[in-house]
Amino acid sequence: MTAEAFCAAVDWGTSRIRLWLLSRDGTVLAESRGDEGMLHCLQTGFQPALEMHLATVGADASIPVMICGMAGARRAWREAPYLDTPAALSRLPGAAVRIEDAGRDVRIIPGVAQRRVNAPNVMRGEETQLLGVAKVDESALFCMPGTHCKWVGVENGAIVQFSTFMTGELFDVISKHSILAQSVEGGGFDSSHPAFERAMRRGIASPASAHSALFELRAAQLLGYEGVRDGAPFLSGLLIGAEVGSARALYRSQRVHLVASGLVAAIYRTALEVAGAEVALLDAEEAARDGLFAAAGAVWP
Amino acid sequence: MTAEAFCAAVDWGTSRIRLWLLSRDGTVLAESRGDEGMLHCLQTGFQPALEMHLATVGADASIPVMICGMAGARRAWREAPYLDTPAALSRLPGAAVRIEDAGRDVRIIPGVAQRRVNAPNVMRGEETQLLGVAKVDESALFCMPGTHCKWVGVENGAIVQFSTFMTGELFDVISKHSILAQSVEGGGFDSSHPAFERAMRRGIASPASAHSALFELRAAQLLGYEGVRDGAPFLSGLLIGAEVGSARALYRSQRVHLVASGLVAAIYRTALEVAGAEVALLDAEEAARDGLFAAAGAVWP
Repeated sequence: MTAEAFCAAVDWGTSRIRLWLLSRDGTVLAESRGDEGMLHCLQTGFQPALEMHLATVGADASIPVMICGMAGARRAWREAPYLDTPAALSRLPGAAVRIEDAGRDVRIIPGVAQRRVNAPNVMRGEETQLLGVAKVDESALFCMPGTHCKWVGVENGAIVQFSTFMTGELFDVISKHSILAQSVEGGGFDSSHPAFERAMRRGIASPASAHSALFELRAAQLLGYEGVRDGAPFLSGLLIGAEVGSARALYRSQRVHLVASGLVAAIYRTALEVAGAEVALLDAEEAARDGLFAAAGAVWP
Repeated sequence: MTAEAFCAAVDWGTSRIRLWLLSRDGTVLAESRGDEGMLHCLQTGFQPALEMHLATVGADASIPVMICGMAGARRAWREAPYLDTPAALSRLPGAAVRIEDAGRDVRIIPGVAQRRVNAPNVMRGEETQLLGVAKVDESALFCMPGTHCKWVGVENGAIVQFSTFMTGELFDVISKHSILAQSVEGGGFDSSHPAFERAMRRGIASPASAHSALFELRAAQLLGYEGVRDGAPFLSGLLIGAEVGSARALYRSQRVHLVASGLVAAIYRTALEVAGAEVALLDAEEAARDGLFAAAGAVWP
């Protein structure tokens, strides 16, 4: 297997790491994933975690590694300074920072910064997904959900403007740490759950009123209108609806390229379509892998 | 001192208890406060906590006790079932639930429920503050900040409509449990702090965009535009501004009676005035005490 291996591609998030061993034509030869995200590695070191996952896929020391995400944050493994908007996606591979003492060729793709005093913003990881999915010279709007959802405007192959909604993290902290924790039961739901759809439509129609609708989740249960099983779909629908409603100006005149996977893809797609958007779905994990592969091909031709 | 004591008034919150020994004319003879709120007493019992605070103020077994707040919640000391909107404030004293086995005359004032499927809501405690500040037959709008901020419409002396903003609790969970915890330093600030005022004005102008502005707090610090000392004022200003902006339809045509104390009073007053509201400030603690005293006078004439 290692005979045909070309490089390893690593998506290094805050709490997770995903590594793929790729051939010259982009075929996935092996993969490894785990909980050795940035937060973990700040304690235990980045290089041991990387070598562990490389060993898992059988990559010897000749295999170079292309990384995106939080390993390049300021106090993480090695800072990969942001490219500023407008940031041409084609500049990302050449701007990757090489880690000199890694024992092999290891590079980290930089994030992107929007240095506007009235709309400051940063991303790490999404720029590589965009490199994987956006065509050269493309102009398009991308919605990239996750713990933090990025809405990114790409013009002529460059990131020109973006905003961040902390929707996933708000769901997490509200459902775990607020009084609503009593009203939200864990476990999955589908995007056709009545409480999801009702709250989502309300958030879309009036994003500003989501703030006062939060407590109604609890009141509805105290008064017997809803049950604890409706809590997670309600809260999720309300927050995603408010995000999609608030972002409406962005997609009024153009298709939304939704970069997502699994349940998150399904519920964002539902919300976007209810809000009147035309949606093109792209798989988030493939996007990251394709972006890393593209960067590797540019750096190691 | 006990010779002239008439009753004890107790504001029993989720996390705090405040008790006043009052004379027939409403004079405060003594007071006691502590952390024996509902959450504490669910573990240790309500009656022992009450008797401890009564002993602190020297109230013998002949002194009756009027209570408002969370002691009357469903799984707390004894449920005081909600009055439904429209709820005449004058009906509150007579609806107080007597605890038969308390060894003295102890009553809990009920909360108020808004039984509307599309806008369910409940309050416990604020109804008693309104009894303390609203005049008979008054029609007015009240803004009552706290962990949860209630906006209450009173017409002809009855609570007819209300909504709840979890602003205080959102500040708490976001600043403690989200990624923004790294960007928010504890400690006070005043309502003229530049970051407070800037974020507040933004929230007022566009409540729906507060959702995407949250992350800018972190980005502004990463990019060097702001420091960690700006975090708490920014987050507080953004959330309060979004609340005040979202509630604008309520106060466009009428004065806002702000029932609050201390820093909370100052920052809500600033936000309301920036949003164009005319504000009349009423002290929140006095409101609760006056409401309990009014109820005691009605029940024990």
